[in-house]
Order: sequence, then structure tokens, then C-alpha cells
Amino acid sequence: MSRGCFITFEGLDGSGKSTQIQKLKEFLEAEGREVILTREPGGTDIGEKIRGIILDPSNTEMADMTEAYLYAAARAQLVRQLIQPALSEGKIVICDRFVDSSVAYQGFGRMMGESVKLLNSFAVDDCVPDITFLLRLKPQGGHARIAGRELDRIELEGMDFHQRTFEGYEKIASDEKDRVVVVDASGSIDEIHEVIRDKVRDFL
Amino acid sequence: MSRGCFITFEGLDGSGKSTQIQKLKEFLEAEGREVILTREPGGTDIGEKIRGIILDPSNTEMADMTEAYLYAAARAQLVRQLIQPALSEGKIVICDRFVDSSVAYQGFGRMMGESVKLLNSFAVDDCVPDITFLLRLKPQGGHARIAGRELDRIELEGMDFHQRTFEGYEKIASDEKDRVVVVDASGSIDEIHEVIRDKVRDFL
Repeated sequence: MSRGCFITFEGLDGSGKSTQIQKLKEFLEAEGREVILTREPGGTDIGEKIRGIILDPSNTEMADMTEAYLYAAARAQLVRQLIQPALSEGKIVICDRFVDSSVAYQGFGRMMGESVKLLNSFAVDDCVPDITFLLRLKPQGGHARIAGRELDRIELEGMDFHQRTFEGYEKIASDEKDRVVVVDASGSIDEIHEVIRDKVRDFL
Repeated sequence: MSRGCFITFEGLDGSGKSTQIQKLKEFLEAEGREVILTREPGGTDIGEKIRGIILDPSNTEMADMTEAYLYAAARAQLVRQLIQPALSEGKIVICDRFVDSSVAYQGFGRMMGESVKLLNSFAVDDCVPDITFLLRLKPQGGHARIAGRELDRIELEGMDFHQRTFEGYEKIASDEKDRVVVVDASGSIDEIHEVIRDKVRDFL
């Protein structure tokens, strides 16, 4: 395999991304594949420092545009330092959130529109996911699942914001049917994993 | 005065911006003007945190594009939180570096070209300086003046980088003659101050 495979997971907080990512990784490794797991924002030392600023609940004065640039900054670093090198070595990269999160959360959730996509175009470069799994869960369901955790600056947003973000994800999925696989996140962990596993197996 | 005045200072490190900014502030205040001083990257709590990441010499792996986004992030915050509100209250805002620094240092110094201007367009919004003073000093001169200081990640770049940045500034000055006032930075502090003071007085 000359070039690896780039798989991203998207969905609202509480949609079960982390669990599914872990199970997919175990499956692929059992098949003898080399898998790199990463996450956004973050995934590199510099990106994790940026993540600290983005998610710090004390940064109440942060302008929406500042937030959008910070996500793009962390993404630019992740693409160049980790994703592109790993793909060119033939590895499978699984990323917890990628540019679709910016489009859904900032573009739709914060109602910043198309500027978010344009602003991110330099960060993404030509690094487009081969498959994106959108774990579809209504905002009410996600909120129930993260209840009890200490919430970050984004999770603390109101239900309207999460509803708009949900709709943003639906729009992305309908615009990019070839790339985005929508998975009902209300099923059991094993049911969801099987859907994902079969799709990835078909792709590879 | 319904809208204030936005003045920026540009030039290589060691060109004497800080000294001239301080003298201009004292002059304007003596004339009874309300002056806000700020700087890039930084100028806000969030911007100063971003500045910490940008200038930290230990962040050796930082991709050029990451750096460009971080400058834009700090700028987006500064424009929205400080510059626009101050201008709409009729104040004079003096900023040590603004978007011209990104164009000169990243666009030319790091040879990233036009992408830097495009990437920054969302940060700047419609906040264009009324006057920009470019303190012109050859890179060799700047390096001599900052010798002995502890240098940050940008100051540690080689002479080629600073030479390209110098040429970038020259290009900006020749493209935007109405806004950019080039001042020979090899003169005495008082001579330079008089040139700047007269220009600002004319403008106001």
C-alpha cells in the first residue's frame, strides 16, 4: 500500500466517538495494520497547547473568529507534523474530529457561515479524509451522556447551539455522500462497531 | 470626533518602534487626546496566551502555516475586543505591529506568498490602519541593536529571513503609499519623532 488511509470520526459530544475509535483501532491492529490515533484540537505538542486555550472555560471573552483560527492552527500543525507523514508511510490514521467539526460547530453552531470553510482551506491543504463516520445522535441524547463530567468551554454552550451544530452535520453528510457515512449512534456499541468495521473493510 | 484614529508601527526588530510609540503617545496625551497602546501578537489576555505559544523558542516543530494562523487568531481577538471598541469611542489606538507584519514576516520572510493576506482577511475585518509608520532599518542594523537581549523564536531566524522580510516591507510601502509612511530609522530618536509627530498632526 503506497498511501495510507485517513479516517475521521464526527458527531456531537457524547455520541460515542472515543469508544468506537478504540474498537476500530483494535480491529485493524488485529488485522495487522499499523494505526495512528489522534484527535482535534490537539494531537501534537503545539496543538495540545492550543487546545488548552480553546477549551479553557475561563476564556469567556474569546471572539468566535479567534476560536475558528485557533482550531485551524492546531489542524495545520496536525496535518503537517503527523497526518501527512503517517499517510505517506502507508499507515492508517484515525482522527477524532477534523475540519467537519469546524464547519458544524463554528459555521453552523456559531452561525459564522462559509468563512469557516475558506479560513480552514490553508490548514487542510490536500488532506481530505477517505472516510468520515458521523455518529448521529440528537443533542438531547449527547447532553444526557456527558452529564456528570466536568464540561469544557464548547460543551457548556446552550441547546440551541448544539441543535444548529447537529443540523450542520446533517448538511455536510447530505452534501458529501461519498465521503461521509452516517451511523445511528443510538444502537449498541457492538452494533455500531460492526457497521463501521464493515465499511472500513470494504474500503481497504 | 466620531471615530478615532488607528495608527500602526512596523519594522524589523531593533528598528526603534517601542521608543517612538512611547514618544508619540506622550505627545498626543499632552495635546489632550485619549490614547490606547497595544501590541501584536497579544494585547488581550487571550492574545497574550497565544503570543506565548508563538514566541516560545522550544516550539521548534511549529509549521509555518500554524504560525500564520496563531498570529491571525491573536489579531482577530485584538480587533474585536480592543481596537474596534476604542475607535468607536473616538480614541486613538497605536498598535505595535499589525497585519503588515504577517505579510512581511510570513508572506515574504517565510515565502508563504499571498495565502497570508487571504488567511488574515477574516481577522482584520474592516479594521485598516489610518496611518502606518514603517521604520526602515536594514536587517544588519536591527540585529546589532537587539544583540545582548534574549531572543524569541522569530528573532532567532537567520539573516536571509530578515532580508526577505525587509523586502516585504518595502513592497507593502510601495503598494500602499497612501497609508504607509516610511521613516528612516537610522536618524536620532528626536528627529524620527518629529517626522512622525508632524504626520499625525496633519492627519488629525
